Amino acid sequence: MERIVNLLLLNPEQQEAFSRLLAGHEQIFAPEGLLPVTGEPLPREVYQQATIILGNPPADCVAGNRSLKLLHTRSAGVDRYLPPGVLTEGAVLAGCSGAWGPAIAEHVFALLLSLMKRLPAYYDQQRQGVWQKLGKAKTLMGARVLCVGTGDLGSSFARLCKACGAHTVGVRRDSAKPAEGIDEMHGLDVLDAQISLADVVCLMLPHTQDTNQLMSLRRLCLMKPDAILLNGGRGTAIDCDALAEVLETGHLWGVGLDVTAPEPLPPEHPLWRQPRVLITPHACGGYLDDTLDRIAEIVQENLRRFFAGEPLRNQFR
Amino acid sequence: MERIVNLLLLNPEQQEAFSRLLAGHEQIFAPEGLLPVTGEPLPREVYQQATIILGNPPADCVAGNRSLKLLHTRSAGVDRYLPPGVLTEGAVLAGCSGAWGPAIAEHVFALLLSLMKRLPAYYDQQRQGVWQKLGKAKTLMGARVLCVGTGDLGSSFARLCKACGAHTVGVRRDSAKPAEGIDEMHGLDVLDAQISLADVVCLMLPHTQDTNQLMSLRRLCLMKPDAILLNGGRGTAIDCDALAEVLETGHLWGVGLDVTAPEPLPPEHPLWRQPRVLITPHACGGYLDDTLDRIAEIVQENLRRFFAGEPLRNQFR
Repeated sequence: MERIVNLLLLNPEQQEAFSRLLAGHEQIFAPEGLLPVTGEPLPREVYQQATIILGNPPADCVAGNRSLKLLHTRSAGVDRYLPPGVLTEGAVLAGCSGAWGPAIAEHVFALLLSLMKRLPAYYDQQRQGVWQKLGKAKTLMGARVLCVGTGDLGSSFARLCKACGAHTVGVRRDSAKPAEGIDEMHGLDVLDAQISLADVVCLMLPHTQDTNQLMSLRRLCLMKPDAILLNGGRGTAIDCDALAEVLETGHLWGVGLDVTAPEPLPPEHPLWRQPRVLITPHACGGYLDDTLDRIAEIVQENLRRFFAGEPLRNQFR
Repeated sequence: MERIVNLLLLNPEQQEAFSRLLAGHEQIFAPEGLLPVTGEPLPREVYQQATIILGNPPADCVAGNRSLKLLHTRSAGVDRYLPPGVLTEGAVLAGCSGAWGPAIAEHVFALLLSLMKRLPAYYDQQRQGVWQKLGKAKTLMGARVLCVGTGDLGSSFARLCKACGAHTVGVRRDSAKPAEGIDEMHGLDVLDAQISLADVVCLMLPHTQDTNQLMSLRRLCLMKPDAILLNGGRGTAIDCDALAEVLETGHLWGVGLDVTAPEPLPPEHPLWRQPRVLITPHACGGYLDDTLDRIAEIVQENLRRFFAGEPLRNQFR
């Protein structure tokens, strides 16, 4: 009999499906790590006794649990559970890649359009009751959109841009592998050249050693002076201090960030107050029902595979 | 020989093309009604002596000009030149419908996405340096978008929504006439029923007696409590006082207005300070180059027709 801690956000039907699927096992439901009714955080000892955890527990609450057999996150990324000492040797780790793409892509797409149409500046005027045109806007029509990272997120984002008239360019390790929504695929060797050609650069990358600070001061300076930079993957892909610096000089039309490094972005960070930046707090695409449905499906399918001794989807170890 | 006042925003090539096309006539270039170099407003007597005006002059500057033969606006709507006393009996009046659709549609689409993802509220937090998720967002995927008005603007807007996964519904006088981007077309007789079914209601209407205050207090109350209302046509299509009232009660998820009645919206109007409203000052889709190109083309083609004695495109009288 497994002891399961289920942290997923579930509607009543989904919770019922998890109860049926895991009948005969012990299962605690604590959406987002909070106890129902009281809303208090789940005590550490419950995490320590679990053999299966579904969702994203605090890493320090699972560290040291030697009976844990499976951690299945709701997130696509699992980086906070990868450092040595968090998970015990034999534990399986899987993520929810495939659940988030459409929702996060649409959120980042909203950031892009908002910046193109100067909506933050108009909103500043609105707060003052000022009716004043701010000049030319930018358009998706004919814009060259570079997607760095062309997995679920990057491909979903590219599809939206392409559907609205943009020319989409992708950069990935294996340029022979196409991705839906990408008009033109290139290898990583031409990343710098592609950055300098793009009207929009969108980062949709997981956190790895290779992606860490990929947008360095040097690469930020390669961008066209009136280009737009977006990040919907992991905040570490941009050197945020260098970004604040180049913005200060007037470089770039605008920047949309749903992720930063560090997170939360400290209240005193200069990026908060840059007028051409739009920041949302890792809003995860706004937790659409669509996303929650996909998470429940992926986790249920992987639980079936786990009990059948088969390899899991999105298995990291 | 005609005396032409050309108020259009033109790049050097376009100005050259107008000079060629109107060689032998007298032509004054004053972009947006401002004299080049000095930037001062064009004197009233210049408007009074003109036989052809291209662009949108102040209505009181053309009133009483009995030698005016043609007024060709840059705008799609021509309503401010329709009241008796503005144009003399024989003057031809034509507009630039067809130039603005893609740009204005994209602008209103940006307002919609911004509202769906709660970007104004996140921006309020950003100004305070606050990193805090605000809960579920809305999505275009599967949303029922009602386009009231399915001409150039409405159809362009519908295409964007449909391309991003929405189901688009149109309402027009002749429901047998299809429009690109509209999945489902209905007649005006079911307007009320369609308003009550829609997740998004987008008004893209010219100002006429029939469209004036179309979204009355009664129709605003027919909308779903968490629906989004957009206006990219003429501000008079919404009773703006009634709108401020229903928003005060918590009705509607959000409202995006690029047009209001009156314009400019007075600084003390309650709509400015409603937290779920996003207002832009009749930003005309941000004067994209694409729009300016289309305007120049339409006006040049209509000048050819005018001199050949043929009926014009978008001729109102």
